[in-house]
Amino acid sequence: EHKNRAHCQPWTNVQTEAKTWTHYDKVCLVIRIPRITILYISWALLAAYSTGATPSEEMNGTGNLMDFLDEPFPDVSTYEDFHTIDWLREKSRDTDRHRKITTKSKESYWELIKSLLDAWSGWVVMLLIGMLTGTLAGVIDLAVDWMTDLKEGVCLSAFYYSHEQCCWTSNETTFDDRDKCPQWQKWAELMTGHSEGAGAYVLNYFLYVLWALLFSFLAVSLVRVFAPYACGSGIPEIKTILSGFIIRGYLGKWTLLIKTVTLVLAVSSGLSLGKEGPLVHVACCCGNLFCSLFSKYSKNEGKRREVLSAAAAAGVSVAFGAPIGGVLFSLEEVSYYFPLKTLWRSFFAALVAAFTLRAINPFGNSRLVLFYVEYHTPWYMAELVPFILLGVFGGLWGTLFIRGNIAWCRRRKTTLLGKYPVLEVIVITGITAVLAFPNPYTRRSTSELISELFNDCGALESSQLCDYVNNPNMSRPVDDIPDRPAGPGVYSALWQLALALIFKIVITIFTFGMKIPSGLFIPSMAVGAIAGRIVGIAVEQMAYHHHDWIIFKNWCRPGADCVTPGLYAMVGAAACLGGVTRMTVSLVVIMFELTGGLEYIVPLMAAAVTSKWVADAFGKEGIYESHIQLNGYPYLDVRDEFTHRTLATDVMRPRRSEPPLAVLTQDSTTVEDVETLIKDTDYNGFPVVVSRESERLIGFVQRRELTVAIKTARQKQDGVVSSSVVYFTEDNPQVAEACDPQPLKLRRILNLSPFTVTDHTPMETVVDIFRKLGLRQCLVTRSGRLLGIITKKDVLRHMAQMMNQDPESIMFN
Amino acid sequence: EHKNRAHCQPWTNVQTEAKTWTHYDKVCLVIRIPRITILYISWALLAAYSTGATPSEEMNGTGNLMDFLDEPFPDVSTYEDFHTIDWLREKSRDTDRHRKITTKSKESYWELIKSLLDAWSGWVVMLLIGMLTGTLAGVIDLAVDWMTDLKEGVCLSAFYYSHEQCCWTSNETTFDDRDKCPQWQKWAELMTGHSEGAGAYVLNYFLYVLWALLFSFLAVSLVRVFAPYACGSGIPEIKTILSGFIIRGYLGKWTLLIKTVTLVLAVSSGLSLGKEGPLVHVACCCGNLFCSLFSKYSKNEGKRREVLSAAAAAGVSVAFGAPIGGVLFSLEEVSYYFPLKTLWRSFFAALVAAFTLRAINPFGNSRLVLFYVEYHTPWYMAELVPFILLGVFGGLWGTLFIRGNIAWCRRRKTTLLGKYPVLEVIVITGITAVLAFPNPYTRRSTSELISELFNDCGALESSQLCDYVNNPNMSRPVDDIPDRPAGPGVYSALWQLALALIFKIVITIFTFGMKIPSGLFIPSMAVGAIAGRIVGIAVEQMAYHHHDWIIFKNWCRPGADCVTPGLYAMVGAAACLGGVTRMTVSLVVIMFELTGGLEYIVPLMAAAVTSKWVADAFGKEGIYESHIQLNGYPYLDVRDEFTHRTLATDVMRPRRSEPPLAVLTQDSTTVEDVETLIKDTDYNGFPVVVSRESERLIGFVQRRELTVAIKTARQKQDGVVSSSVVYFTEDNPQVAEACDPQPLKLRRILNLSPFTVTDHTPMETVVDIFRKLGLRQCLVTRSGRLLGIITKKDVLRHMAQMMNQDPESIMFN
Repeated sequence: EHKNRAHCQPWTNVQTEAKTWTHYDKVCLVIRIPRITILYISWALLAAYSTGATPSEEMNGTGNLMDFLDEPFPDVSTYEDFHTIDWLREKSRDTDRHRKITTKSKESYWELIKSLLDAWSGWVVMLLIGMLTGTLAGVIDLAVDWMTDLKEGVCLSAFYYSHEQCCWTSNETTFDDRDKCPQWQKWAELMTGHSEGAGAYVLNYFLYVLWALLFSFLAVSLVRVFAPYACGSGIPEIKTILSGFIIRGYLGKWTLLIKTVTLVLAVSSGLSLGKEGPLVHVACCCGNLFCSLFSKYSKNEGKRREVLSAAAAAGVSVAFGAPIGGVLFSLEEVSYYFPLKTLWRSFFAALVAAFTLRAINPFGNSRLVLFYVEYHTPWYMAELVPFILLGVFGGLWGTLFIRGNIAWCRRRKTTLLGKYPVLEVIVITGITAVLAFPNPYTRRSTSELISELFNDCGALESSQLCDYVNNPNMSRPVDDIPDRPAGPGVYSALWQLALALIFKIVITIFTFGMKIPSGLFIPSMAVGAIAGRIVGIAVEQMAYHHHDWIIFKNWCRPGADCVTPGLYAMVGAAACLGGVTRMTVSLVVIMFELTGGLEYIVPLMAAAVTSKWVADAFGKEGIYESHIQLNGYPYLDVRDEFTHRTLATDVMRPRRSEPPLAVLTQDSTTVEDVETLIKDTDYNGFPVVVSRESERLIGFVQRRELTVAIKTARQKQDGVVSSSVVYFTEDNPQVAEACDPQPLKLRRILNLSPFTVTDHTPMETVVDIFRKLGLRQCLVTRSGRLLGIITKKDVLRHMAQMMNQDPESIMFN
Repeated sequence: EHKNRAHCQPWTNVQTEAKTWTHYDKVCLVIRIPRITILYISWALLAAYSTGATPSEEMNGTGNLMDFLDEPFPDVSTYEDFHTIDWLREKSRDTDRHRKITTKSKESYWELIKSLLDAWSGWVVMLLIGMLTGTLAGVIDLAVDWMTDLKEGVCLSAFYYSHEQCCWTSNETTFDDRDKCPQWQKWAELMTGHSEGAGAYVLNYFLYVLWALLFSFLAVSLVRVFAPYACGSGIPEIKTILSGFIIRGYLGKWTLLIKTVTLVLAVSSGLSLGKEGPLVHVACCCGNLFCSLFSKYSKNEGKRREVLSAAAAAGVSVAFGAPIGGVLFSLEEVSYYFPLKTLWRSFFAALVAAFTLRAINPFGNSRLVLFYVEYHTPWYMAELVPFILLGVFGGLWGTLFIRGNIAWCRRRKTTLLGKYPVLEVIVITGITAVLAFPNPYTRRSTSELISELFNDCGALESSQLCDYVNNPNMSRPVDDIPDRPAGPGVYSALWQLALALIFKIVITIFTFGMKIPSGLFIPSMAVGAIAGRIVGIAVEQMAYHHHDWIIFKNWCRPGADCVTPGLYAMVGAAACLGGVTRMTVSLVVIMFELTGGLEYIVPLMAAAVTSKWVADAFGKEGIYESHIQLNGYPYLDVRDEFTHRTLATDVMRPRRSEPPLAVLTQDSTTVEDVETLIKDTDYNGFPVVVSRESERLIGFVQRRELTVAIKTARQKQDGVVSSSVVYFTEDNPQVAEACDPQPLKLRRILNLSPFTVTDHTPMETVVDIFRKLGLRQCLVTRSGRLLGIITKKDVLRHMAQMMNQDPESIMFN
């Protein structure tokens, strides 16, 4: 029943009705008819993708497809779903394993080879992750390209060509007409033969909306039926998982497959969302997939998380074509435990992924990066003022977006709205498509829009944004074009951009968090790029028309090329992205990798810093932290500084009014006592003390191990009955031999080194210890006496209390 | 007496004679005469540089110049020299400070402004560090340029011009003759009027050696007299300091000044050393200097180290012109505690430094980077074989260098050699200069050599290395020159390079570690670049002459431009640097920033990985770790994995044979007992227990605080006599009022939350706790009873024992 509080909250209403995830029959009435079709398509894909069992075999299995696919290693992991892991324990288990291998490797050559293979497996995993992530990213890019264009028309020479590919392969087009080639036909043209006129426009409009609705309906249905975890951007959940939380199936094969497919559909539908965040989730799923090949990673939750950190880096690397930025993103934004070894491996994975993507070459230009730009003019000191203003705008946008989106998501969680996720997606897609089509800047895909906004107006640029009044007397080298007065095209573009800005701002708030894969990097960047370009053109025109003003005098003489509106767009994009995510170094590095020059780092940094400061002034949390909080994940943020004066004694359980701590004694508890204790409580473990009087701590025993040990003993060990005494002592219990019930010795399952702090320890130190050592619980003592226990949940609840948040929203354990 | 074991070991022999560092009169007989001159020069520099007291005032002071300048904040820091800090304590002190300011800021506007200033001070410090580091780097570059050329000749139009500047400003030179202009005269030409012939050669040779000797003598003398800590690269010590060790004066103003001056001298003398490592030290000195402006940093050793980490990033940033690489270097190689906040600030400092340096523009080409290269040909898969071979070479070189250098440094520490540091430097300089002059590749500065080796042979290249046989029939664009047969110049260059390689390999081993500032980045890169270029030319010629071989067939047709020897040089440089330092990500990123293209990351990475693996196979430690170990610094490496099976009980003191732990009881120790205990032991603190019988721990008290408290009480508090009982209990001691000696209540100095582990805790966990929490000591208990104590020193000693190293070489506490 606690599981219901998992991610993707709105589903939980559904789920509560249906009792478990897997019995989806009752709740999916709406989409019963296409389900079978979808199942078939998916199986075909799955069969091509998975090297394991064929679909028919799966059908003949336990009959429960979901269980079969999404339950990774149920037997080996010793943690339950939605529980936190104990990092120290995982680490020491890995050291044990390593020690064993090292000892064995001295025995024979075969063992030596095995130990070498083990040492190399980390690199192999990285290589595989990089290659699969790069491939998937390439496939996604190609598919999105094609399907986005499919909304407008089709390529007659080969239906699987996108608009650009179609006209590129055509040899009947000139450079100027490169967007119009006879092979590419809009739907209206194909159906009615007319490409102009109101009828054609309406038909195109209608088909555009229809395709968008179809894509988004497919996406939300697939997510709903096969992989509810595939929704959202996934980064909040990945942050939580990396911090040591278990969410079974969140990184499963099924999620990987469905997220990849639905991501393509969602992006193609023209909704205001991006593929960058979900790509990180896809990469982490790949990471998890390859972990299962090596017991080193699949059997150790700590080591698995090292691999996942690297996978996240590979994901960002392919999302932007920025390997270094990806590593820094993983380090700064996503990861929790990031040792140096992981840094190096992440870098390797990120590079492999980037080069795989380049080998696939989805953009057809051999460029690694998503938005490649080259500017030819330097920037000037005075321009820092508009850059900083863009930073302020970015910060305000970040605040507005986070507040608005969180308010909407909370509404979705608490009201009827959450019951109709499919309808919600359909409605939002409908609104988006209807409003987007008339405006050329919103009709096309968001990344194309950003790309155009970033670009400088060269001599060959045919865009409306580059419609400047040319002075025919002036002849200059191709790329060094002086500032010119704006023509009518620029003015109409400005109006359209302003409308697009308002549209994007509003619709993105409602889009992020719906039950489809949705990233917010691209929409945020789009908002910033539009604002930046508008500001850039304004500054440019002001400098051109008022070049005698004192601020422009030095660098904007007539005929000089002094303002680059594209740079403003880029700065604005960085500012808005920074305001929403609060990324800092990784943001600047990603942008640096896009431009490839240190030249523009100062403007980018000025905007990023301003934006972060402005946004932080209204609330410290970025969008990911806000969503983590909204969903109540037990995430202990490394960045939150705990500055309150409380002590361990204020936080520990039991409180004064509560019954005393449930403890075991080392030599006076009977099997029956233990069983009663296990039945009556739901604690994860029990401290063991010398005696109830002295209360001196000797160790800690896990509930699960205790249950198993007693069960086994009752079955296999003669003489162990309910009245048997459980001994945790080292030396043999000195029982009279005549004494009947055989004692049960359980020292082997006793953890003799439980973590303790004194009751006077300041909570800031306790928080620090929990964070740095990744503890699950910590015992509190005073002068050697056991007083209580602090769990990670207690720490989080206390921190939330201190910050006046709702402490009850934190997920159990 | 323990202080003698400080850094720069050979000096300690000297020092032991002279008792303290400051009484240098006896030991500096050799250099008594120039001392006064040097003093004057230094004071003049100091007066210009320092805004504080004037030299005359300093003379009238305590008379001890060294003490006055190099003792930073003797009153505020509560740690003694050569002790380790307690990170947890520093952090909680900072939280207290922060809490106080936050509370106060609500009281008045003035306090609010003060709190805002406090919050901003971190950024101000970063800005100042960046600006000063950038400026110093620029000045050093300019001075080195000029002084290196001074060894060969002088500029007649302005003596302070370097060769390049001299001929650049001259308008009598053509482009082809840009190295030969009438204003620049070699010494022989200036003195005798003849620029050719054996006489001129001998005279130039003689003066070259003489200048080199003069520079290095000045450098070693300045270091010896004014700032012994200015020697070496400084990175091992900075790593140790950042890990929480106190070395007073190591980052002092005096060290900063002398290191800057002597660095110029040392590099100009032509010794096989670089300025990159010392620049990190210089930057950290700047960081320390600016820390003293803000009590937030100067009074908190933990916060100070955050600033120093950022300063190290700024140092590397200016050394290579690679800000991102600098941040990653600080993260990967130097820093110990690197929170995300520091990442962001480091990046800021690194950028400010880089841009300040660019504003100074010491290379005269507006380029930020040290070696700017642009290649025009891609690399081919088959080339990975030579690249990996270069990686193997780099790994072997790293092993050879580390072993050779450590053996030589150990010899220097233990034999008479260490007694004559000045003589050693003179002899090595003499040998270097005599051997370097005849070979044109060693005569010039090492960075010029590397620059030439990295460069591709363009059409306008006049270097001997580009003396290829041209085919006059072929006309091509300027930069796209096909592979050609090598001319006689290339063959003679190859011979000279081979000799230079051997020379560099041998001399660098003896140079690094002498008593002058010496970095090893540049010499290592030079070794690699030479080897790489040789391999590159070999492959190029092989491909040209055997283009029909199967491996060359696809990409090396005649007339094609298929092999770039410059790229091989760069790959070789990365491999050798990686072998010596074991840098990984930062190395690749620095190299990436030099070339500015992702294109060549794969070759660089292949070489770096191979080199690290090969070198690691012979020994896990890089040169810095080896030097840390050689000097016995208490450095707990984050990267060493502790995999042994020992428990806390095996490591803790007291051992079985030793007397019991020195403890205080909470209510039965008298003042006299305490004083005896303090006198008899030299422990840093004492655990306090309930009673000697129960041995239940209640807290820990610092030796220093105990001493001060008792002293103050004896002076100020009536009735406290030797027989007074010291109470650590909470409630008032229930003493009979008639009872004479007044009790001394010391609960306020008792640390009620000492860190404890049980005796069964595996040492791997203990090591982890020490590392991650930065502990100084940890108490060991069993079922609430105090058993012993583990200090950082014990942990290090145990780790050394487990690795079969000399445990005695680790510095006390």
